[in-house]
Amino acid sequence: MNLRDIGEFGFIKRISRGCLIRPQNIIKAIGDDAAAFFPPPHEVILVTTDLLVEGVHFFRNTTSGFNLGYKALSVNLSDIAAMGGIAREAFISIAVPDDCDLDFLEELYNGMKRLAAEFGLNILGGDTTLSKTDLIINISVLGSAFEKEILYRNTAQPGDIICSTGFLGDSRAGLHLITHNIEADSNELKTLRDAHVIPKPDLREGRFLARQGGVHAMIDVSDGLSSDIGHIAEESNVGIRLYSEKIPISNNLEKFCARFDFDPVEYALAGGEDYTLLCTISPDRVDHIAANYLRRFRNPLYQIGEITDSGKMELFLSNGQIRSFSPSGWDHFKTK
Amino acid sequence: MNLRDIGEFGFIKRISRGCLIRPQNIIKAIGDDAAAFFPPPHEVILVTTDLLVEGVHFFRNTTSGFNLGYKALSVNLSDIAAMGGIAREAFISIAVPDDCDLDFLEELYNGMKRLAAEFGLNILGGDTTLSKTDLIINISVLGSAFEKEILYRNTAQPGDIICSTGFLGDSRAGLHLITHNIEADSNELKTLRDAHVIPKPDLREGRFLARQGGVHAMIDVSDGLSSDIGHIAEESNVGIRLYSEKIPISNNLEKFCARFDFDPVEYALAGGEDYTLLCTISPDRVDHIAANYLRRFRNPLYQIGEITDSGKMELFLSNGQIRSFSPSGWDHFKTK
Repeated sequence: MNLRDIGEFGFIKRISRGCLIRPQNIIKAIGDDAAAFFPPPHEVILVTTDLLVEGVHFFRNTTSGFNLGYKALSVNLSDIAAMGGIAREAFISIAVPDDCDLDFLEELYNGMKRLAAEFGLNILGGDTTLSKTDLIINISVLGSAFEKEILYRNTAQPGDIICSTGFLGDSRAGLHLITHNIEADSNELKTLRDAHVIPKPDLREGRFLARQGGVHAMIDVSDGLSSDIGHIAEESNVGIRLYSEKIPISNNLEKFCARFDFDPVEYALAGGEDYTLLCTISPDRVDHIAANYLRRFRNPLYQIGEITDSGKMELFLSNGQIRSFSPSGWDHFKTK
Repeated sequence: MNLRDIGEFGFIKRISRGCLIRPQNIIKAIGDDAAAFFPPPHEVILVTTDLLVEGVHFFRNTTSGFNLGYKALSVNLSDIAAMGGIAREAFISIAVPDDCDLDFLEELYNGMKRLAAEFGLNILGGDTTLSKTDLIINISVLGSAFEKEILYRNTAQPGDIICSTGFLGDSRAGLHLITHNIEADSNELKTLRDAHVIPKPDLREGRFLARQGGVHAMIDVSDGLSSDIGHIAEESNVGIRLYSEKIPISNNLEKFCARFDFDPVEYALAGGEDYTLLCTISPDRVDHIAANYLRRFRNPLYQIGEITDSGKMELFLSNGQIRSFSPSGWDHFKTK
């Protein structure tokens, strides 16, 4: 059964259940020309949007509908996390080809609803239309934050310590497994695959960091460590010094790289879609904040380098050598 | 030259100019993980989103980039107009195939910027990515309105007079010209073509109507008169009576239908994408509001029928016959 069998409005009725989970201050959800709601008083509105195209960002034959929906929303929530915000309302546009089964679409929404429920997010509207061949998903998410707590890319200061909320490179390893048809036949490989397939947004971590005095800049790792720290360097007009032995590499990635003969640091630097947060913290605050972070999340806040005033992007190797690096993560267009 | 030549970030720099035209209360525009801005105090936020796919909603070889951008944004603004709101911030996602020239894309943004400037709207963010073959555009627009002034679909009352802010059917005639390769060789045909290609959103008209006491329900004509008045009927649980001789048919459409042997009323009923507003007004207020509307806009507010409690959708013909009609406008999926 596909969408032609039940029509656009039949489909909307079918997927609407479970979309409105936080009805307070919502005046109109799905079903009118626009959604209508009261914003939280005295807060700033945050908006982010992402467009995913089959064959470019995902392949329908290598993902379940559930996982695709979960990740599509997660990617957007990660952008709200990177501002230090609370995610509030999501708007889902999909264009659906004839060969896309209704069950797949319902699972797609189930994946989004699962993640939305976990973070108290409403799915408040969207658009449903036809596509010729490819499934297309656009998600816009509204969040909010107090003005003084929002964290930007252009506010890093020389001397700041660069921190990561989690492991880097796992997602790229997971992507390698999928694109090379390597079965995830161990817990290690499954964990790497899941890091790519169902990444969690660090919304709670982002909120926590935003409320600490002394955190200056923040970004999420979507394009890759080198690219995303490069955005902070460029926007803040500062230099970057990373220490290779401090970059958080999971045991799973170590084993994967040993088995397939890759360099884990290179994986961490150039890999994308980790959706951890990178932040820069005043040196006199970093140990206090890291200790609080560890108590709160039972995970370390990894200190991986420093902001400098050199304008350079440098990687200090464990053998004492210094390599310059350039943003080599993912630019969707640029021909290398 | 295409996007690969300058990269995603090069492109963003190129199109950013002229996007922020109303900087008051905007904290972060294009260039971070999310946009950030203060909402207008005490108002409700309105959000609408539309996804347009090449080959389904438009054809690149029959439109200019400018007109495509103009219309893509206009369609969204019309949804805000239909709520009685003010349009404030737009977020543009595009997926671009390799064969799409950079000039076409710049014109696409120029079309959006022209319309945005006319209505005081910022383009505050978006996403730019690759597509395999088709150009894909998703636009999300945020607007605002005072809670008491918002107009919905489910609040029509029996006895209300149904009004339209403009002609119906012109856009479908314009589409016919385009799809049948008929040259618009007269001012009449050019006007019809433009009604389809560069429709204007009735934002000022929607605001005006929302502020008048006695306007009960409103919707914009995107799917077609019969479909969209059908949405009001279904959501408000009421009946509809339209008078065929009162449906506003332009002289241009009359001439077009005479020349190509179509029924203008049928065109007005089933045609879509007029982007006029349909509203229902208390009978004791309608003449007063229509007189004010005429003074303000120098165009009549057309009174085309009534809301009934019959549950039926009826069309009264000029010969005294009554025909029932069903929503026969555009459902993207439903196989007829």
